[in-house]
Amino acid sequence: MTNELTKLLNISYPIIQAPMAGGITTTELVAAVSTYGGFGMIGAGYMGAEQLQAQIQELKQMSVNFGVNLFVPSPFEVTKKELQHAEEILQPINETLHLEAEQVTLPTTMEAIKAFEEQLCVVIEEQVPVCSFTFGLPTEKVIRDLKTRGIITIGTATSVQEAQGCEQIGMDAVVVQGSEAGGHRGTFIGNMQASSIGLMSLIPQVVDAVQVPVIAAGGIMDGRGLRAALVLGAQAAQMGTAFLTTDESGAHELYKREIMLANEDETVLTRAFSGKYARGIKNEFILQMQEHETSLPNFPIQNILTQSIRKAAGKSQNKDYMSLWSGQSPRLAKRQPVKKLMETLIRAL
Amino acid sequence: MTNELTKLLNISYPIIQAPMAGGITTTELVAAVSTYGGFGMIGAGYMGAEQLQAQIQELKQMSVNFGVNLFVPSPFEVTKKELQHAEEILQPINETLHLEAEQVTLPTTMEAIKAFEEQLCVVIEEQVPVCSFTFGLPTEKVIRDLKTRGIITIGTATSVQEAQGCEQIGMDAVVVQGSEAGGHRGTFIGNMQASSIGLMSLIPQVVDAVQVPVIAAGGIMDGRGLRAALVLGAQAAQMGTAFLTTDESGAHELYKREIMLANEDETVLTRAFSGKYARGIKNEFILQMQEHETSLPNFPIQNILTQSIRKAAGKSQNKDYMSLWSGQSPRLAKRQPVKKLMETLIRAL
Repeated sequence: MTNELTKLLNISYPIIQAPMAGGITTTELVAAVSTYGGFGMIGAGYMGAEQLQAQIQELKQMSVNFGVNLFVPSPFEVTKKELQHAEEILQPINETLHLEAEQVTLPTTMEAIKAFEEQLCVVIEEQVPVCSFTFGLPTEKVIRDLKTRGIITIGTATSVQEAQGCEQIGMDAVVVQGSEAGGHRGTFIGNMQASSIGLMSLIPQVVDAVQVPVIAAGGIMDGRGLRAALVLGAQAAQMGTAFLTTDESGAHELYKREIMLANEDETVLTRAFSGKYARGIKNEFILQMQEHETSLPNFPIQNILTQSIRKAAGKSQNKDYMSLWSGQSPRLAKRQPVKKLMETLIRAL
Repeated sequence: MTNELTKLLNISYPIIQAPMAGGITTTELVAAVSTYGGFGMIGAGYMGAEQLQAQIQELKQMSVNFGVNLFVPSPFEVTKKELQHAEEILQPINETLHLEAEQVTLPTTMEAIKAFEEQLCVVIEEQVPVCSFTFGLPTEKVIRDLKTRGIITIGTATSVQEAQGCEQIGMDAVVVQGSEAGGHRGTFIGNMQASSIGLMSLIPQVVDAVQVPVIAAGGIMDGRGLRAALVLGAQAAQMGTAFLTTDESGAHELYKREIMLANEDETVLTRAFSGKYARGIKNEFILQMQEHETSLPNFPIQNILTQSIRKAAGKSQNKDYMSLWSGQSPRLAKRQPVKKLMETLIRAL
């Protein structure tokens, strides 16, 4: 099936693999999705420019279609006192995991902006077909620069106002992220609670308010969700958790297994891992941090502070301290190759 | 179109008007919905047996198909201290509205159960075609008694486990209430946060887990939502806010207008009005009560304590202190006759 968006992205089917950051979107995953007629994306939010360039070049050598997602940096700061408070809270967990207190280097807002600009340079230099953004709006100049070079731009919105913002600065399409979605909330206007709008409500209200194609994200796992998104007015579905448990994804085996075992009511929104609200399966770490939820440093500070904990947890096969991002449909997750998932989805169209 | 549920309810179209309690489901509204091929329901949660019987008899005289929804009572209690605390919090609002401190009579759990049993007696005596339940499961005996008399029973669930509970005690169908839904959360197992699951996730996961027909509720306002619910596996859509703004609904004119003016990100979940979480448009009352959200008495105590405030607010055309329940799709609300809404919905099938 074709529509405005499938033509724009040059894909056979309106199926986009969500750009999950943190090592999940391997070259194998991105390439497989595109090979079977969908659109694979690199979740580059945490990547350095060199690492990003290397993966882009791998994909280009395979001659597959793909996109890159970047995190738009927002100003952040942390006082010595806040930092000390956050470190004190994490100390018992460091002890549990036998981690030495290590001196982490915290970036400044200026450094985060510089890193983002370096990522953008790579995207432009490598002529990546599509660049999507999460956590905010880049400047109009960035969008112009990308469009001038024929790069398609996509924004991420959790409300009508945010979607209109994406359209106004000239983006070609917008992902609407429903409250069902796993991982970080893309919210950049207003508070998290107001932005937790279910897809059944969010899709049609955004579709009525913008002219650009809308892509639906959140809880979509199979042909039913894909068709429902289209019926509600979206031109494609962007799916994260469904691709996370495929053979080709780079997610930790234990993480894939935890999603397969989870129920629909076991995910929560938490700031504990990164300082920004994200939906994941409730585990020991989230429980231990619960009382501190609102007092933790903002993204990306808290994310850097918990990095060693998450890394150690992964290495020691300890699900209690890993970030287990998942949407609200884990009962529908299947451990399968991308080919099988794509076939199931395409059959429903 | 017909399916198992439309046959069960003896309706032409898979469209159910949600049983909104508190004077909204007038005889005109219920009758109009059924007349145009949908299924109208009396929201009888707050009704005394006599009032309920009178409305049932009105509808029977009109020879229309309809159902009744009841609130399943749960044990509740309030200490003198809690009560005093709650009254102190409400005092400034009483003063703002020039309300005399009046002595309210608070029911006991036993009295609430007795009132519920009286409602059930009316339903049985009047041979109401369908009886649905919210806030919990009635006893298996109640379900047996109703079924023996040919009365169809429907439960309300916000999770897979709750839906399975409805099925296990013998109910004929289950309404799944997504996080998008306006008004009270039907949650009766676990906490409110865990139960806030969007319909895109909730419908297919429940459909896979139960044998009985599933009815989708939450944020559905037009043909797009109706079709999406069916595509996701539901056999009908139950719509509240969409019917609330029709000409025939008994909602306050100001309330209808506030929904028409609201955006998708202006509703919140609050315990402030009733002691039970419900989704409504954020107003002055909710803001003033925000800091006390978790310390207020449980339903139905808080509901009784705020009754005079809500009543006075309605009389004096003051939206600041009215409960403005609404789902997350107010931008899709239309002020129109039921006939027009039904025609729009039916066209989409």
